[in-house]
Amino acid sequence: MSPKITTELLKQLRQVMKNPRYVQEPVQAYIVPSGDAHQSEYIAPCDCRRAFISGFDGSAGTAIVTEQHAAMWTDGRYFLQAAHQMDSNWTLMKMGLKDTPTQEDWLVSVLPEGSKVGVDPFIIPADQWKRMSKALRSAGHDLVPVKENLINTIWTDCPQRPCKPLITLDLSYTGVSWRDKIVALRSKMAERKVMWFVVTALDEVAWLFNLRGSDVEYNPVFFAYAVIGMNTIRLFIDGDRMMDPAVREHLQLDSTLEPEFKIQVMPYGSILSELQAVGASLSPKEKVWLSDKASYALTEAIPKAYRYLTPYTPICIAKAVKNAAETEGMRRAHIKDAVALCELFNWLEKEVPKGTVTEIVAADKAEEFRSQQKDFVELSFATISSTGPNGAIIHYKPVPETNRTLSVNEIYLLDSGAQYKDGTTDVTRTMHFGTPSAYEKECFTYVLKGHIAVSAAIFPNGTKGHLLDSFARSALWDCGLDYLHGTGHGVGSFLNVHEGPCGISYKTFADEPLEAGMIVSDEPGYYEDGSFGIRIENVVLVIPAETKYNFKNRGSLTFEPLTLVPIQTKMIDVNLLTEKECNWVNEYHQKCREVVGAELERQGRHEALGWLLRETEPLARVQ
Amino acid sequence: MSPKITTELLKQLRQVMKNPRYVQEPVQAYIVPSGDAHQSEYIAPCDCRRAFISGFDGSAGTAIVTEQHAAMWTDGRYFLQAAHQMDSNWTLMKMGLKDTPTQEDWLVSVLPEGSKVGVDPFIIPADQWKRMSKALRSAGHDLVPVKENLINTIWTDCPQRPCKPLITLDLSYTGVSWRDKIVALRSKMAERKVMWFVVTALDEVAWLFNLRGSDVEYNPVFFAYAVIGMNTIRLFIDGDRMMDPAVREHLQLDSTLEPEFKIQVMPYGSILSELQAVGASLSPKEKVWLSDKASYALTEAIPKAYRYLTPYTPICIAKAVKNAAETEGMRRAHIKDAVALCELFNWLEKEVPKGTVTEIVAADKAEEFRSQQKDFVELSFATISSTGPNGAIIHYKPVPETNRTLSVNEIYLLDSGAQYKDGTTDVTRTMHFGTPSAYEKECFTYVLKGHIAVSAAIFPNGTKGHLLDSFARSALWDCGLDYLHGTGHGVGSFLNVHEGPCGISYKTFADEPLEAGMIVSDEPGYYEDGSFGIRIENVVLVIPAETKYNFKNRGSLTFEPLTLVPIQTKMIDVNLLTEKECNWVNEYHQKCREVVGAELERQGRHEALGWLLRETEPLARVQ
Repeated sequence: MSPKITTELLKQLRQVMKNPRYVQEPVQAYIVPSGDAHQSEYIAPCDCRRAFISGFDGSAGTAIVTEQHAAMWTDGRYFLQAAHQMDSNWTLMKMGLKDTPTQEDWLVSVLPEGSKVGVDPFIIPADQWKRMSKALRSAGHDLVPVKENLINTIWTDCPQRPCKPLITLDLSYTGVSWRDKIVALRSKMAERKVMWFVVTALDEVAWLFNLRGSDVEYNPVFFAYAVIGMNTIRLFIDGDRMMDPAVREHLQLDSTLEPEFKIQVMPYGSILSELQAVGASLSPKEKVWLSDKASYALTEAIPKAYRYLTPYTPICIAKAVKNAAETEGMRRAHIKDAVALCELFNWLEKEVPKGTVTEIVAADKAEEFRSQQKDFVELSFATISSTGPNGAIIHYKPVPETNRTLSVNEIYLLDSGAQYKDGTTDVTRTMHFGTPSAYEKECFTYVLKGHIAVSAAIFPNGTKGHLLDSFARSALWDCGLDYLHGTGHGVGSFLNVHEGPCGISYKTFADEPLEAGMIVSDEPGYYEDGSFGIRIENVVLVIPAETKYNFKNRGSLTFEPLTLVPIQTKMIDVNLLTEKECNWVNEYHQKCREVVGAELERQGRHEALGWLLRETEPLARVQ
Repeated sequence: MSPKITTELLKQLRQVMKNPRYVQEPVQAYIVPSGDAHQSEYIAPCDCRRAFISGFDGSAGTAIVTEQHAAMWTDGRYFLQAAHQMDSNWTLMKMGLKDTPTQEDWLVSVLPEGSKVGVDPFIIPADQWKRMSKALRSAGHDLVPVKENLINTIWTDCPQRPCKPLITLDLSYTGVSWRDKIVALRSKMAERKVMWFVVTALDEVAWLFNLRGSDVEYNPVFFAYAVIGMNTIRLFIDGDRMMDPAVREHLQLDSTLEPEFKIQVMPYGSILSELQAVGASLSPKEKVWLSDKASYALTEAIPKAYRYLTPYTPICIAKAVKNAAETEGMRRAHIKDAVALCELFNWLEKEVPKGTVTEIVAADKAEEFRSQQKDFVELSFATISSTGPNGAIIHYKPVPETNRTLSVNEIYLLDSGAQYKDGTTDVTRTMHFGTPSAYEKECFTYVLKGHIAVSAAIFPNGTKGHLLDSFARSALWDCGLDYLHGTGHGVGSFLNVHEGPCGISYKTFADEPLEAGMIVSDEPGYYEDGSFGIRIENVVLVIPAETKYNFKNRGSLTFEPLTLVPIQTKMIDVNLLTEKECNWVNEYHQKCREVVGAELERQGRHEALGWLLRETEPLARVQ
């Protein structure tokens, strides 16, 4: 992977930063966040402005370009990748390390007095704008909205915004109709005394209307906004997608409906002016509910006194708690996914010793096996297929320049998942196709202990996920080891593979308490730069736990693994496991045998079934 | 404990809330926070306004009185106590429970439109003012400063503000002179480009000048403020305390000093006008550093553009990391404290069966034994001496009406500590003087497992204490149990027994990372309302840990117990301990024997030594 040469692009950007055609006054710095106008994590090619200007195409990062400097903030998952992809024009700011300045502090340290810092107001979330604007102002600078996106002015071959057909989901997948979702949303609005709710996140629009799209790779969403009033529903969406009879039928666009369920379809680009009109028409006490992560541009459309901002929207919270139809769908999806991975690992076991399987070949093969499963739609993220030192690049994606051949001498890490019409998967397994060293087994076993500590944890109702994060690290910490990423994220139901409002992380973001029905990942790891990477990830469902006592009648919760793929016993140093941990592994493998074994049998995949049975032989501890 | 009758007082308060002599406009609600003008946790009698109006005298709580309602917010430590102490005029708001409204939400729900909510601007911290003011404003109400404290207007026999003599501490106790502390502070100020620093917390003033006082019970502090400029030092303090030759010598008030170390002494009451004068004299870019918890009144004295507010001041952070002199002092103090407790428990073991020892007698006896130790000054907090159901009142203090006799049938919980000139102690032991039930032992052992899990934890440098909190709960959670308080707090060095910026809590306050030299408590518990309370508390020192590996060269930390008092083995169900936990107990008891045993020997306390040796016999697990 050679870095992108950005000297000329930065020169052009610095010119437009002073060009009165684009900026009212010259800006001395320009911020290029990762997101799109919906604050999406995964974005369409037309929105990959930060990757275009810097070369760094990881999922998280913010670029800031000043007259003298170009700097990139990203987190531990991407330190190596960003360092590889960016040329020497760029300074890498490693977030989470003690000496790394915040964007605000850095700007204050490099800018001349009274500087203007520009940013596209549609791309920056309102909460970030507020924080950054305040910090800059207190140092004598100004954050200013630059209406025309400056990257777009120099991006001559910028791709078009996608506008692909929609998928309608019936009740057997969603459990709840879009009308009932609107009713529930309006009742939350009434509780908070707000008159309007603005849906800005793409997955929230998709979930609310029980529609899916494919405008963004890996995330089954489509570019749209919605504005829900107590008696009106406005959907802002482009193209002829609303001409599809299935969609018209699903949304009952041609039916005689009670007026409060009649959907008005409007052009995507009209959201700002429509919202400004709403803002101008408000009577005193009529509040408008927005996510505090909605774009600065849309937030500003509502006069400050009328805004009701929350970190998580009622849709975000409702979406996180899966109903029975969704949970059953997720179970089915994970069984199919396990079938595909049993096939893959059986195949790899035979093929890797031949020396012909590269990371890309393995990733393609994984996709091939998944695509054979019912209701497969697409992958849920770019497959991380990495062997040896590439495994230490936490969100590595193999490309021809880095593509390494799997061998019997190196650890192989596969983090992959798919979108099925009934659910979203995300699983990581770390395998060795030869004989792992004692040190590799030791590290793998610490990671496994952490994985089990979270998965088997019992905790009171109302516990926030971040309180479980240290359980995943304790065994590593005891030996002076750690990993520089969170332990888990929420997972959507045939939706985004990363979703709020819950998660398991040492970062104390304002996560909502875990509730039965929520689905998160459990994925501790250990990475040695230049050597190997280890990660063990299951998607787990929050379920009620039976306990001996029940303090204050609060009830307890625990996790049920939805992912049912063997954890390679060859990599485990059994003597580092406690009896309880050993039993956990054996019971987990027994469940893989029963559930996935039955499906492999049903699908007539006898060779993969043989592999599954071999890989799930019970462990025995030497006492 | 019978509740305070507050009907008449509330009537009077509601009258002055409308009296133009005290308020510009009538206020529909009046907030009575716990704190004093320094946001102290422990306060002088003249500042106990919330206790005066409500009867509830726990250390944390906020009262709000409206025309119709009177409500009290407090946390899990005080639910029972507050319920006992308040009459039916009051509604108890249990903080931390899901359905309890915030103060802001409650106010919005009960106030008529366009209400004014009053508060004393010297008592409310600026950060709370800001949050509350914003929430009220967005609901159409106003938070207004009421200069005259309305409680004071109805509190006819309010005691005088104390003004007691000062103690000077020499280098053998403090390790660093006040001049060197000023130099270090100014260098932090220069780093952040601020010209002034306002010291508002009483323990910060005491620490900075190496002085101690006794204006507030249990906390060796004195009423004062300080304003430190780059070339000036102003100390705001009342009385003739500055006439004491020892203090004059210590502060070099009569010496010829470089002007930047010359201390100007000013009246305590002149802080606001002096600070307003500073505020008026600032040139652009001259910032003034204040804690964001400083009072709203003082914060407002500095124009907004000139304020530099942080959650923790540089003094707070420097004070938390104990130097070698302080650490050695803390060790000495804890050995003396252990001697006193060995004497006490030996005495209780003999006396309790006679049926003559009440909670108050036991508390007094503990103080008596402590006062026999060298450099004893006073207790560090009100002794929690509680038996049977009283043990479940987390911050219980025995009073004649509740005073229970210790018996061989009930668990006894003693949470106590002292101020010695060389250090501050805080220790909880839970004892049974007869035969504990299997259930009591089971609960005690879960609490012990939690205590050990924190104490023996190894974690990377830079870890915040809140990431360790769940370790203390894990064994309890597994059985559906929990406790409704944090696990640990910072401890001062001959200063406040509760201090920031570190701690161990599930509440994700903005704690600073743990560093070697910091001192915190480790005190998980378990409480059954109406039955018993269990808590095991040591004060522990953060120390570097040796680990097998050293990821990213970050280094690791762990804890060394400073408290060296036996943990009653009779209460332990050994078979619930792992081998590692059992070894921890045995090694801990071996250290108690060696270190405290030697001191008991030296002090000729042979009977207590005998008790220590009996109580520290090694545990043996049945395999």
